[in-house]
Amino acid sequence: MRVVITGGAGFLGSRLARRILERGQLTDASGTQRKVRNLVLIDVVPASVTDPRVDIVTGDLADPALIERALTPETDSVFHLAAVVSGQAEAEFDTGMHVNLDATRALLERCRKLARPPKFVFTSSLAVFGGVLSDPVRDDSPITPQTSYGAQKAMGELMVYDMTRKGFIDGRSLRLPTVTVRPGKPNRAASSFASSIIREPLSGVDAVCPVAPTTAAWITSPRSVIANLITGHEVAAAEFARAGFAHTRSVNVPGLRVGIGQMIEALRSVAGEAIAARVKWQLDPVIDRIVATWPANFAPVLGPALGMRADHDFEAIIRQYIEDERPVAEPR
Amino acid sequence: MRVVITGGAGFLGSRLARRILERGQLTDASGTQRKVRNLVLIDVVPASVTDPRVDIVTGDLADPALIERALTPETDSVFHLAAVVSGQAEAEFDTGMHVNLDATRALLERCRKLARPPKFVFTSSLAVFGGVLSDPVRDDSPITPQTSYGAQKAMGELMVYDMTRKGFIDGRSLRLPTVTVRPGKPNRAASSFASSIIREPLSGVDAVCPVAPTTAAWITSPRSVIANLITGHEVAAAEFARAGFAHTRSVNVPGLRVGIGQMIEALRSVAGEAIAARVKWQLDPVIDRIVATWPANFAPVLGPALGMRADHDFEAIIRQYIEDERPVAEPR
Repeated sequence: MRVVITGGAGFLGSRLARRILERGQLTDASGTQRKVRNLVLIDVVPASVTDPRVDIVTGDLADPALIERALTPETDSVFHLAAVVSGQAEAEFDTGMHVNLDATRALLERCRKLARPPKFVFTSSLAVFGGVLSDPVRDDSPITPQTSYGAQKAMGELMVYDMTRKGFIDGRSLRLPTVTVRPGKPNRAASSFASSIIREPLSGVDAVCPVAPTTAAWITSPRSVIANLITGHEVAAAEFARAGFAHTRSVNVPGLRVGIGQMIEALRSVAGEAIAARVKWQLDPVIDRIVATWPANFAPVLGPALGMRADHDFEAIIRQYIEDERPVAEPR
Repeated sequence: MRVVITGGAGFLGSRLARRILERGQLTDASGTQRKVRNLVLIDVVPASVTDPRVDIVTGDLADPALIERALTPETDSVFHLAAVVSGQAEAEFDTGMHVNLDATRALLERCRKLARPPKFVFTSSLAVFGGVLSDPVRDDSPITPQTSYGAQKAMGELMVYDMTRKGFIDGRSLRLPTVTVRPGKPNRAASSFASSIIREPLSGVDAVCPVAPTTAAWITSPRSVIANLITGHEVAAAEFARAGFAHTRSVNVPGLRVGIGQMIEALRSVAGEAIAARVKWQLDPVIDRIVATWPANFAPVLGPALGMRADHDFEAIIRQYIEDERPVAEPR
């Protein structure tokens, strides 16, 4: 079985790659469990996963030649994670359209030409929601995104569903909650603060929180989101119809609703007052406006029916981060 | 004022052109009523409207050179009507994507480069709806199209709204009901029968109805749809927010719910039994499946709040067709 991950050098992409290599097998579109013999990681920078099964491909994802080289005709599955994040897509409209729309379309077009219609897991986002929404947001809540990132992801979902309906692919669009705690440096996602306010204090560095403590977010841990990406791939296409959702392939991935103030409380409880005090509140109107358009409370039905699971509490997510990413944690 | 109509040689485009020429003026994005000095009609075939104010442009709408020539920097308004219709977009996926998505995007991209952000009226369709829907369909009902045409129109709406939000254009997406009675020949719209079953019998020709008499449709007369297109252009941007719809520029245009059997009853009542008997029922599963995914019952709130109006009854629509398109009507 040949599996491709776009954004394969990124935070989620590299973890997904490692998880797939550990599992060693996946279920193809015909429902057969098969060994993963080839895992192709595409990104703008080379992925650092080393394994004899891994091929590294570097370049612009909207380049048809690169896509053709990476998605050989015998490709069975594509996880399409590469994206320009929300803050950058809002500031650089053309860059967002190029990567989030054009590259997604180019990949889907290539998938039509493969030997068999592949499974196609597209990472969409809760940012497809916005405007006037029910509380909680339901699986069929209206898609009226209020950011360019959300609009581009929503267009991707429409293509994934339509091409699935046409039999070109077996697609699944997973609307991910905000993933936290991410290691490394802040990125240009408007949600980047949701990791910084935990990660930086734990490293003994001050962090700025650009949104109000009363703002809430719909979040997932890295472990849960990787598990849900695998589930989103593994589940049989027929399960969508069985759950009463034959008319869509878009899934609100289960998450945890948490107030930003509560996140700092959890940090205090896990790591102590001195660390929690490193968070400085300083409202950034641009970030706050983007984040405020995203709903924080969902009542997912389809995701759980497909076997997806949410985290239980934010304290556990912080402990998970310390365990996975910071072998030498700060003393309490 | 310079106004561009794509699909300007088509049924709606040429009628819209005549209506704009009659009015002589439109309201620009700044809210100023201005004389229409230039009306540009773009289509694959030359438009037949003759008026000193009219420029005819012929070619492929996805061609940037053609768009640049037609949308000069001083363009104030664009009515984007050109589209590959539903039946053809379903049969020829690439053609549909090329015209319905690529050409729409190319036009929008050009609009960003004009001297001032223009008004942009995009003709979307009730085909953006499908799947599991409330009855009646509300303005905020979920967008889960079950045809490629609907998916492409939904992507166009997302771009129109996002570019409006960014200040690139002042966009309005009007989801048109099925327009009937159209003169001329059948086209490849799955809804083409909704005109044929009235038009052909009135010309003394048999017509085949490919859907069941119990199937219902959400329809509009040509006169009403032209009036609503003008209203959709004229209304001030602030009216969307005033009506409680600041988060969208997509409007479910008011229509009339009518059963296909009722349409034939109306034909009988207006034109007599001999003419109504010319309709032969012969189910076409492909057409029937496409039409069945479209809802027929709506409860529009935004459209009426913006001043849009529906037809009152189907008999009046048939009489309107006879008056407008068949100066010498068949005797009863």
